[in-house]
Amino acid sequence: MSNVAGTALHDLTASQALRLIKARKLSSEELVTACLARIEAREPTVAAWSWLDPQRALEQARRCDAAEPAGLLHGVPLGIKDMTDTADMPTAYGSRAWQGHTPARDATCVTLIRNAGGVVLGKTVTPEFGVGAPGSTSNPLDHTRTPGGSSSGSAAAVADRMVPLATGTQTAASVIRPASFCGLVGYKPTTGLLSLDGCKGVAETLDCLGTLARTLEDTRLFRDALLGAAAPSAIPALDGPPRLAFCRSPLWHLADEGARSAVENLISTLSRQGANIAELDLPAEYAEMPGHFAKIVGFELQRTTAYEWNAAPEALSTAIRDLHKAEQPTSLADYLAARQAVHRLRRAAESLFATADAIITLGVRGEAPVGLGSTGDPSLNVIWQVLGLPALNLPLMTGPAGMPIGLQLIGRPFGDDALFAVARSLLDRLGRSDL
Amino acid sequence: MSNVAGTALHDLTASQALRLIKARKLSSEELVTACLARIEAREPTVAAWSWLDPQRALEQARRCDAAEPAGLLHGVPLGIKDMTDTADMPTAYGSRAWQGHTPARDATCVTLIRNAGGVVLGKTVTPEFGVGAPGSTSNPLDHTRTPGGSSSGSAAAVADRMVPLATGTQTAASVIRPASFCGLVGYKPTTGLLSLDGCKGVAETLDCLGTLARTLEDTRLFRDALLGAAAPSAIPALDGPPRLAFCRSPLWHLADEGARSAVENLISTLSRQGANIAELDLPAEYAEMPGHFAKIVGFELQRTTAYEWNAAPEALSTAIRDLHKAEQPTSLADYLAARQAVHRLRRAAESLFATADAIITLGVRGEAPVGLGSTGDPSLNVIWQVLGLPALNLPLMTGPAGMPIGLQLIGRPFGDDALFAVARSLLDRLGRSDL
Repeated sequence: MSNVAGTALHDLTASQALRLIKARKLSSEELVTACLARIEAREPTVAAWSWLDPQRALEQARRCDAAEPAGLLHGVPLGIKDMTDTADMPTAYGSRAWQGHTPARDATCVTLIRNAGGVVLGKTVTPEFGVGAPGSTSNPLDHTRTPGGSSSGSAAAVADRMVPLATGTQTAASVIRPASFCGLVGYKPTTGLLSLDGCKGVAETLDCLGTLARTLEDTRLFRDALLGAAAPSAIPALDGPPRLAFCRSPLWHLADEGARSAVENLISTLSRQGANIAELDLPAEYAEMPGHFAKIVGFELQRTTAYEWNAAPEALSTAIRDLHKAEQPTSLADYLAARQAVHRLRRAAESLFATADAIITLGVRGEAPVGLGSTGDPSLNVIWQVLGLPALNLPLMTGPAGMPIGLQLIGRPFGDDALFAVARSLLDRLGRSDL
Repeated sequence: MSNVAGTALHDLTASQALRLIKARKLSSEELVTACLARIEAREPTVAAWSWLDPQRALEQARRCDAAEPAGLLHGVPLGIKDMTDTADMPTAYGSRAWQGHTPARDATCVTLIRNAGGVVLGKTVTPEFGVGAPGSTSNPLDHTRTPGGSSSGSAAAVADRMVPLATGTQTAASVIRPASFCGLVGYKPTTGLLSLDGCKGVAETLDCLGTLARTLEDTRLFRDALLGAAAPSAIPALDGPPRLAFCRSPLWHLADEGARSAVENLISTLSRQGANIAELDLPAEYAEMPGHFAKIVGFELQRTTAYEWNAAPEALSTAIRDLHKAEQPTSLADYLAARQAVHRLRRAAESLFATADAIITLGVRGEAPVGLGSTGDPSLNVIWQVLGLPALNLPLMTGPAGMPIGLQLIGRPFGDDALFAVARSLLDRLGRSDL
């Protein structure tokens, strides 16, 4: 079997595949075989995987096929970003210092995925520690462009139909940016909602686990599995039209002209479709967020890479080495002041939602840039990441080069459920049942 | 050399030893030798260590003696709670499932300690994953009593003058309780201030790194080292008399009569010494904190121990096995509701400090209970731990059996520095220059 009702197996979403598997119309082995064939054909160009174990994946799939299809991800193949520990596959965190390292334990998120029946195909490419030099992964939509980062391999693998789902991690924009560049649904939960146990620490104040998928339904399913849910949950329905706050943020001048006009056009369309959209101007103190962000990341990344700097400095990239050799590293006083300022701003974040269910904004400057030497600029996302708010990237726009640009939806702290409801309502109003 | 100016070397505080080492009046090797001799004499009764490596400790000490005394902990011996990864010593997290496991990497806090010149003697006893069955550690002040937990070995080792400093971790009361039971200064920073990278996750919303020491000066020094400070910082001075809020909390009925009268007496004394003490009644919603706490710990501990439950269920204690076999585990909906409620309460926590620099309260029910089968009840501390506030235990009271009881000071979020200032002011007013 290579397709179902005209859809190639590797094109199935996780939810579509799961329905077929549960109805015994598709086996996990067939699905995994199709995904592995897709990878074999495309990997030389896309380079999404840092480790792949076809035999182990097929064994897992056959075990699933022999068991009762109970789990939320039963038999569904997926990728794990290589910032995350796996006890049966090497985990290098994108770093030469950890080549060939196999952890003693699966990360908690990997255990939850496996408990839900997910079939881990392999590990996806990340830049060194999620922040350093990018890998060689290309954007499946245009191989001359970056897929974004640092969840580079995860986004490329999902966008290229190698797997329907992959995990990401985000400290600045590492889920939202690749989702936008590759035309995916990216989800960055409220900071601290999903377990990071067993993921390499980058800047612990900001680090988050996230997901990459091709539809909102799949994103919801994956989120439920990562929360250890016993059964999938339905996305709640909104009572009425979505109430949105369009926020340009103090960094709007960094956005490309094409992205700005695309978002203005989309907002006009959404308004015509009945969405209630107000404008939100952030208070002046938000302009200081990028400064707080830089101090927190500078200080915390130095400590989370201190062991590697001691043990194997020659294996580190220039970027990480420079951090440790800095003549003026972030001082403790500056760090503590930044943490206090962020604490105050996080405490006040609820007030941004006084008249809105969600904020809509750009999480990126525009389309994926040409070239693989950089994964793009995270600046436009920093304010939202520092606030710790839940975020969804919806692939709703196209830039002047024909590449995707995402609309970013931002929700209240721990308002992840309501954010899914707003997203569903927007997609329905736009007639995007494919998402 | 076995003593300095009449003080046995193993009785020196870290700060005292450091001054002598920096003045070249004491070598790290002499100090470590004295601590190892103390451990050899006392360990059969106290049982504070799960792993000890005297030869490695002496090698580290000799390396310190050969180097310029630059670091904040240069040549100072200390213990690491066995919830924390060390690349050169086994790390079992108190669990039979991890006996003989040596991690690939030092935890970030261990790297910071070593970078500061600290000499890691070994690993200290913890109950299984910090929550299960206790080890056999006894209270050095009365061997029939528990030292408290889960930082059992760390507290016992510091109280017994085996080392001047040891790390702890706290999810409920695991630093504050053993500090109170053993008569130590215990410090639990604002949640998220110190790096937990490389410490076993328990309940990630609540987990904290903390410290155990015999004086406030040593506590400050250790905290500075754990923050990677280039130089030690002075405890700031208060402008005037400390403004305190005495809070009985909705769980006061759980405190022993002896502890309640001891704290009332101490408050009278502090008032006579010029401290400004008001009473604080917590809003009614705080009475729901223990319920939120139980739901968050139940849900998160199940996920952080899911790997071990899959891989080695027979090696787990009944308590952890029961958590996984529970017929009615915490539901996802209950968990999310508890996280939302805690988020609201954390956001409002600043308001508790409207007229006070610090809250004073009990972190324990009373003296260390007799028996080693339990490390005592954490209930009285749960409200403060859930709020994520910084806390110090000061050994200022004695119970009816002559055992220590701590006064707990609670500070504003990220107000750790101000909390140290209040503590110093109280100690000075009480003439406790020994602390």
